[in-house]
Amino acid sequence: MTERIYLDGNSLGPPSAAVRAAVIGALDDWEHHLIDGWNQAGWLGVERRVATALAALLDAHPDEVTCTDSTSVNLFQAITAGARLRPDRSVIVVEDAGFPTDRYVAESVAELLGLTIRAVPRDALGSAVADDVAVLSVAHVDFHTGDRIDLAALTADAHRVGAVVVADLAHAAGAVVTDLGTWDVDLAVGCTYKFLNGGPGGPGYLYANRRLHADLVPAIRGWFGHAETFEFSQIYIPAPDAQRFRNGTPPILSMTAAAAALEEHADLDARAREEIGQRLVGTFLDVVEATDDLGLELLTPRDADRRGAQLSFRHPQAYAIVRALHARGVVGDHRPPDVVRLGFSPTVVTEDDAAAAAHVLVDIMQTSAGDDPTHPQRGLVP
Amino acid sequence: MTERIYLDGNSLGPPSAAVRAAVIGALDDWEHHLIDGWNQAGWLGVERRVATALAALLDAHPDEVTCTDSTSVNLFQAITAGARLRPDRSVIVVEDAGFPTDRYVAESVAELLGLTIRAVPRDALGSAVADDVAVLSVAHVDFHTGDRIDLAALTADAHRVGAVVVADLAHAAGAVVTDLGTWDVDLAVGCTYKFLNGGPGGPGYLYANRRLHADLVPAIRGWFGHAETFEFSQIYIPAPDAQRFRNGTPPILSMTAAAAALEEHADLDARAREEIGQRLVGTFLDVVEATDDLGLELLTPRDADRRGAQLSFRHPQAYAIVRALHARGVVGDHRPPDVVRLGFSPTVVTEDDAAAAAHVLVDIMQTSAGDDPTHPQRGLVP
Repeated sequence: MTERIYLDGNSLGPPSAAVRAAVIGALDDWEHHLIDGWNQAGWLGVERRVATALAALLDAHPDEVTCTDSTSVNLFQAITAGARLRPDRSVIVVEDAGFPTDRYVAESVAELLGLTIRAVPRDALGSAVADDVAVLSVAHVDFHTGDRIDLAALTADAHRVGAVVVADLAHAAGAVVTDLGTWDVDLAVGCTYKFLNGGPGGPGYLYANRRLHADLVPAIRGWFGHAETFEFSQIYIPAPDAQRFRNGTPPILSMTAAAAALEEHADLDARAREEIGQRLVGTFLDVVEATDDLGLELLTPRDADRRGAQLSFRHPQAYAIVRALHARGVVGDHRPPDVVRLGFSPTVVTEDDAAAAAHVLVDIMQTSAGDDPTHPQRGLVP
Repeated sequence: MTERIYLDGNSLGPPSAAVRAAVIGALDDWEHHLIDGWNQAGWLGVERRVATALAALLDAHPDEVTCTDSTSVNLFQAITAGARLRPDRSVIVVEDAGFPTDRYVAESVAELLGLTIRAVPRDALGSAVADDVAVLSVAHVDFHTGDRIDLAALTADAHRVGAVVVADLAHAAGAVVTDLGTWDVDLAVGCTYKFLNGGPGGPGYLYANRRLHADLVPAIRGWFGHAETFEFSQIYIPAPDAQRFRNGTPPILSMTAAAAALEEHADLDARAREEIGQRLVGTFLDVVEATDDLGLELLTPRDADRRGAQLSFRHPQAYAIVRALHARGVVGDHRPPDVVRLGFSPTVVTEDDAAAAAHVLVDIMQTSAGDDPTHPQRGLVP
């Protein structure tokens, strides 16, 4: 990563030497142990390693977390299971401009269970949750703007009218405090490849509050979610805890990367991560805002408690700006049509990086906004 | 793999040098390209590479195949989508002693859609499919016995009464002919980590017959299954083909291994694989059956057209036999309570291996069946 300042760890965290070594170790184990790798190389335990590390980060018990499938699949599982906890209710509340998958999945669950979707702006979620609501699906940090919702307050509001809260932590976990236990969140999902540096398309995870374990019914039921996987029983008996949401055989190469990445930063708790991230964001903003009239509209809240470890600026030439940053060694994201999105991963970016990148942005804005505003970059992995 | 004869490639195929190099290449690309790996390192195309290679093996068009998620998740998608094609029908037919996940998933779909499960023995599937049946779910090759069903005939029978056929190819693809197109199978799923050598817990795949594409409704809907993933649209528009069953961001480390493994054997078509596999199985059986009274009951059909590339023997001391084989360098599987299961992967096992392993088994049976019949091995990855 020489000479690059990487402000896209919120899309895809970078690899470390430890992660690389762990994956190569898994290749070695595969070759050496073959099928016996499941027992002798600890493959059966990789999911628990990830879950344990995540639990510490999420203020959860390890039995409340499982690492499995993708965020999309876990969200389907969580919303379906959440809605089935409230069979007498008819509505799923979603954001009207959140991450697209979250909307698609909620709509599908509504079709399957005969429910209705209530899609509202993010700031209207609280008032949209009435006593007809089975599930509120909400992203803790918005992928596009970096807006961080008060998940504790929203959960309390939802519980007051008996709704189940499903939180999408994809852009929150590893960047800000995510005290699921303290806040009494019902269900949550997220991914390991953004702020958690687990590798491209690495496995997702699901959190299920202990209070609900006995009543959660997985829609997808694979043998690894069975209480006794290797009994090969024809009778489905779900695992007693969050592991009931596991399905197929775990993807060892990808999951080993996630485990190694999480364990490498086990000493960095969520509070420390948030503090570092917000300091980085603040440093960047201070430099940019010291110069007037750059023409950048900040979409992200100014209050550190209300944002993730990322900044989004709106500008008509956003694509050209991102290309110009890239040409000068600063890697950020273009989000169509007109947003420059920059991430400040606490395990990736330094204060010097943040300040230097901000000066590059100021310089670009003061000279030229770039040379090719017409060709939209196809951004990836929000 | 020095001095081992590996008769468990049907549980977990071994790695090749090419697969190892491909995964290390993906690690290099991650480090070098970071987020740009999606475009510059071809990560966006890995799914198509796997699908194209699989399509050749499955007698399918590439747009009928997608590589995504686990076999369990794909089976859930396939059975749900299949059942929704027949909203006026009330029954899902499943095997009463098939792979457990297949039963669990069908039961879950039945609960979600208000259908009934009809679970019957494998040899009664044809007669169980009447005009009230929405979906017939069947494993092409049974994981436990190696029994291969006549999927062409069964599909024709099912279509005659209007039922949708969902085939589980986990123990068939890569081992025997799986002519889905010619047989006009509706939907199918499978995994890449058995006969296809894609790596522990590697991604699954889903086949959807072109004839159905316009009408298939995915239950799980992630952004990678959208017609225009990077438009980030709030409106769900499924991809026009089998890719609508994709969900989250693809797991690049695991999927790269699967792509490399499949491409390495692209010259070996399904017919060649079946011919090799059956020759290996025949060689093994000839040796074992040349000796009388070994006390092994063959569960697998004797007709080569009716079996996969695997053999299952029943014996009260099955576990001890598997341990004794292992101690003498022959790796097989114990399937509780009393089955010795041996796989003859066409890309892994040689004729000499098959003959040598058979002689070891005969020798073990003639001397001692082993020393520890009481301690059940927890076998893995059927």
